[in-house]
Amino acid sequence: MITDVSPVVDCGRRPAKAVQDEMVPVAARVFTDGRKVLRTRVRWRSLATPDAPWQSTPLTPGLEDWWHGHLTIQEIGPAEFVIEGWEDAFQSWRNDLVRRIDAGIDAEPDIDSGWGLLETSLRRLRAPHRFRLAEQARTARASGRELQLRFLTDETLSARLSEIIPVSGLSRSTPLSLWVERPRALYGAWYELFPRSQGSDGVISGTLLATADELPAIADMGFDVVYLPPIHPIGHTGRRGRNNSQVATDQDPGSPWAIGSEMGGHTAIHPDLGSLDDFRTLLEAATSQGLEIALDYALQCSPDHPWVTAHPEWFAHRPDGSIRAAENPPKRYDDIYPLDFGCRSWRSLWEACYGILEFWIEQGVHIFRVDNPHTKPVAFWGWVVRRLHRLHPEVILLAEAFTSPAMMRELAKVGFSQSYTYFTWRTTKDQIAAYLAELSRESVDYLRPNLFINTPDILTEELQRGGPGAFRARLVLGATLGASYGIYSGFDLAEGTALHDGSEEYLDSEKYQLRPRDFSGTESLRPLVSRVNQIRREHRSLQQFRRLDFHWSDDPALVCYSKSTPAMDDVVLVVVNLDPWSTHESTIHLDLSRLGLADGDPYLARELLSGEDYVWQGPHQFVRLNPARYPAHILWCSR
Amino acid sequence: MITDVSPVVDCGRRPAKAVQDEMVPVAARVFTDGRKVLRTRVRWRSLATPDAPWQSTPLTPGLEDWWHGHLTIQEIGPAEFVIEGWEDAFQSWRNDLVRRIDAGIDAEPDIDSGWGLLETSLRRLRAPHRFRLAEQARTARASGRELQLRFLTDETLSARLSEIIPVSGLSRSTPLSLWVERPRALYGAWYELFPRSQGSDGVISGTLLATADELPAIADMGFDVVYLPPIHPIGHTGRRGRNNSQVATDQDPGSPWAIGSEMGGHTAIHPDLGSLDDFRTLLEAATSQGLEIALDYALQCSPDHPWVTAHPEWFAHRPDGSIRAAENPPKRYDDIYPLDFGCRSWRSLWEACYGILEFWIEQGVHIFRVDNPHTKPVAFWGWVVRRLHRLHPEVILLAEAFTSPAMMRELAKVGFSQSYTYFTWRTTKDQIAAYLAELSRESVDYLRPNLFINTPDILTEELQRGGPGAFRARLVLGATLGASYGIYSGFDLAEGTALHDGSEEYLDSEKYQLRPRDFSGTESLRPLVSRVNQIRREHRSLQQFRRLDFHWSDDPALVCYSKSTPAMDDVVLVVVNLDPWSTHESTIHLDLSRLGLADGDPYLARELLSGEDYVWQGPHQFVRLNPARYPAHILWCSR
Repeated sequence: MITDVSPVVDCGRRPAKAVQDEMVPVAARVFTDGRKVLRTRVRWRSLATPDAPWQSTPLTPGLEDWWHGHLTIQEIGPAEFVIEGWEDAFQSWRNDLVRRIDAGIDAEPDIDSGWGLLETSLRRLRAPHRFRLAEQARTARASGRELQLRFLTDETLSARLSEIIPVSGLSRSTPLSLWVERPRALYGAWYELFPRSQGSDGVISGTLLATADELPAIADMGFDVVYLPPIHPIGHTGRRGRNNSQVATDQDPGSPWAIGSEMGGHTAIHPDLGSLDDFRTLLEAATSQGLEIALDYALQCSPDHPWVTAHPEWFAHRPDGSIRAAENPPKRYDDIYPLDFGCRSWRSLWEACYGILEFWIEQGVHIFRVDNPHTKPVAFWGWVVRRLHRLHPEVILLAEAFTSPAMMRELAKVGFSQSYTYFTWRTTKDQIAAYLAELSRESVDYLRPNLFINTPDILTEELQRGGPGAFRARLVLGATLGASYGIYSGFDLAEGTALHDGSEEYLDSEKYQLRPRDFSGTESLRPLVSRVNQIRREHRSLQQFRRLDFHWSDDPALVCYSKSTPAMDDVVLVVVNLDPWSTHESTIHLDLSRLGLADGDPYLARELLSGEDYVWQGPHQFVRLNPARYPAHILWCSR
Repeated sequence: MITDVSPVVDCGRRPAKAVQDEMVPVAARVFTDGRKVLRTRVRWRSLATPDAPWQSTPLTPGLEDWWHGHLTIQEIGPAEFVIEGWEDAFQSWRNDLVRRIDAGIDAEPDIDSGWGLLETSLRRLRAPHRFRLAEQARTARASGRELQLRFLTDETLSARLSEIIPVSGLSRSTPLSLWVERPRALYGAWYELFPRSQGSDGVISGTLLATADELPAIADMGFDVVYLPPIHPIGHTGRRGRNNSQVATDQDPGSPWAIGSEMGGHTAIHPDLGSLDDFRTLLEAATSQGLEIALDYALQCSPDHPWVTAHPEWFAHRPDGSIRAAENPPKRYDDIYPLDFGCRSWRSLWEACYGILEFWIEQGVHIFRVDNPHTKPVAFWGWVVRRLHRLHPEVILLAEAFTSPAMMRELAKVGFSQSYTYFTWRTTKDQIAAYLAELSRESVDYLRPNLFINTPDILTEELQRGGPGAFRARLVLGATLGASYGIYSGFDLAEGTALHDGSEEYLDSEKYQLRPRDFSGTESLRPLVSRVNQIRREHRSLQQFRRLDFHWSDDPALVCYSKSTPAMDDVVLVVVNLDPWSTHESTIHLDLSRLGLADGDPYLARELLSGEDYVWQGPHQFVRLNPARYPAHILWCSR
């Protein structure tokens, strides 16, 4: 019997997620009737290429019939794996024999069965072992019972024979599917900025070329992805002014999410930002800096979008013939018309929406941040993802769905590579531990969190009240808890002024106006950001999300956790002071087994922010964190 | 989207278990894109009869997209259910409209959509409601906007319309299967006895007819099932003597599990016990007492079993041609040959094994306690169960598999109606709470525990050391925690002497000798057993296993839990003193919501053992339990 095989998503109806060369943990319960000795292995192959070979590795037994192992796939695309189990007939016979002998039962009549099993096994053994063993067997069998027994019960013999995989009597789990993406789908540091603010004086719009000039600084900070809000023409109808005011002046650029004007729609570039050539230049600049550009995929239109006149059938009309603007009462968005994905002409609409992706992929964009996917049918996303997987498996989709857990999980299962999460609002020690435990265990096989710390829409109360100290603490949390995390420009200046008390909107939000910034000041968090991103790059345990463990600390303001590689050859322990105002000192109590350490032995704890080395011993350690100096300890632990 | 539907076993590959008229809880996550108002229902039908009608009931929404409800099936046999969800278009429209009005948005252009939706809905509404509503609608529509709005936004209107199930736009989960058995599969009190001891003087064997004479006393104790160890002829070869000694005298009757002699095998009755007619008499006596007889189904043979000579091919032979006796080194059972279910002639063997069941079913036996099913292939049991389900769906199989959790669960999934558990060895408060929580939640949809407190093989250390006090406490635990529980004769005399220290075998075990008993003594636990079984019969909450909740008590020796019906119309609270030697008094802290009670209100707590009434208020109550007097409180709680 082979049961409880993992990773599995929706009983195998959906593929589990992996990235190239990721060590994917595999587990199953394998058991049988009677007292037989079992062997198991996991076999897998990529389905991206027609005749990729099967690979396999044995599983190791744990408690209560559990068997564990890992698989690793190199190719992007679909893959499958199965668990196989079989009886090690010779080992079973040997163990029973030994038990009988120990119990003083006459073993005589059983020896011949042993020789029989040995012969069958030998046939399947690879040369030269086969010949050597056969030779030794002949000699032993010719000798007395005593020597025969010693030979047959020899542990090295049974160990050698247990490597044999039998031709028959093998039981196999139903194949389960995996979807393998490039590593960036799992690991990356994201930086969000508005191109129109780059090189702007606050009055004249910035440009894509000016954005290109900013890239070296962002690359220096150690980011991997630069995400741009919509760069398309912006509508005039219902345009919002500063701070989302209903009336806009001629100077107000409007919200980039009000996509489309007489200058074009989702495949056009806002003339103020530059040309398509400029955009290609930006892409090249990014590539040369080791950066990747991510675009916004926001499926909605301003009333001036070309589609409104060319394809009125794609919008929901009211009885009076008017198109209803987007709204989430009491909120209204007069500058936005939602698309009606369930309209009669849904086929042509869906094709047109996919066409947008196709267009930008052709330009060289391979990452898209998807705006509010939960307000469109899941069936549409399934259709989009299936096509992307077939045509552009390298494309990464990030779901911006701040909605119910069930919908967020469903979108991830349908194939979004990454998802925004509630991390932003998990602020206390218990909230962080509980939520991250959920993300790194329950849903880890299909939902990859991208722990954005702030966004143009989300300036949390914690950041508003906590000052730079809170920004530093959240930075370390996001960057060390998540394999992927992100910040929105201005975070690195600790911008924390809200539109009004109780609001998560920024005062003078960049969504409605140009926001040139000066990062040269001493207040800049960029040095810390750079250091933290560098640590992420130097430590593989921070580049994965499956192995995250929380440890106990006496002080509720100190959250303590560790990440480790499966081989335990990189282990990083993090302690963060969640109180941005005062120094906290307390004892932390480490689960050393999670750090790959033995209780008695001393071990090195290297503070990666300060560079100091500590030699620790045992699970109980004293830490002291002054938020004015360091928000956290990031400790590399090693024997 | 409809996800996380339950009850579900192995992704729907196996049916979930239910009994006739059981209120089976159903749950699912149902959600959609956007802000639509959803309705859901569960539909089910029996598949036992070709054209059984679909039944349905609406589900009620909970947190995070969860919907909950119940289904109930009357017919024994297979059944199926689906979850359906749809948008309540009119309600969605109404809520948006109200939001808009509250937000001061012009509702004017939306009113007509409302009338449109109303018309479509009306067509599907049942008369006379339809006519009345249509009439009211006409009037309202003819009047001014003000009245129109009031009519359309009226809550009773939308409530009425939300009862309508649309023809299209309905989404449906994949059907899941259930297997429905008669209530005895879930609920029952079992009593195990050896017929050969009934009416015996210790030298001459008891009989089936003498056993029939014992039934009234057992029925008076409130038991439902009388389970008999094997009643077949017993082999002579390797017969065990008293206390499992290797040498047997002529007086020693041998172990009933060493089945088969020249007098016959699994379909024969031991001549000392009587004839097949006597057995039929016993069955009739049982029926007249409202009792049911359960037989032992032990698929193994004594060396003298007719099969050994008639079908040597059904046994595993050693190279020297001998058949190996059963063994679990260092233990040996020279009196037993195991059957080789994987032998070449497995088909005829499996048929013969099934034939045994068929024979006794014909005699009128419908419950079998299956001996060590985990030492036979699971595939065999699957085959047996499929045939039984087809030919004799009323038959109940109890699995005696004390083995790994995975195998125990697998056997339950394959279709055993009930399973022995580890309950016997869970003795501390934490062990009991953790294990019973697992049984009543994780595996409750397919594994039905039968909480046997002792067996001829298992006299736990707790019972050996605890004296009558321990017996009383375990009795209350088994009888009130489990919907099914059982005791083996002698428990009701608090027999607690082990073969030797550290052994769970009885001294002078009835497995190897006759054990006539006198229950007339004052030491007898029968009065308490009767009382407890009577309480079980009077309280439906004790006849089910899905709704069991543990409550906090300050004293580690006091375990506190409650059981309740889904309608909360029967709630029983139990507090057991696990210390058989001393009185414990302490405060218990009740989760009143689990008792269907409100915090402020006083409630009646009727002590069902003593008959005393208490009026309690609030969650914190003081209890005092003297094991010499009462081992426990069994409190019926009511407003």
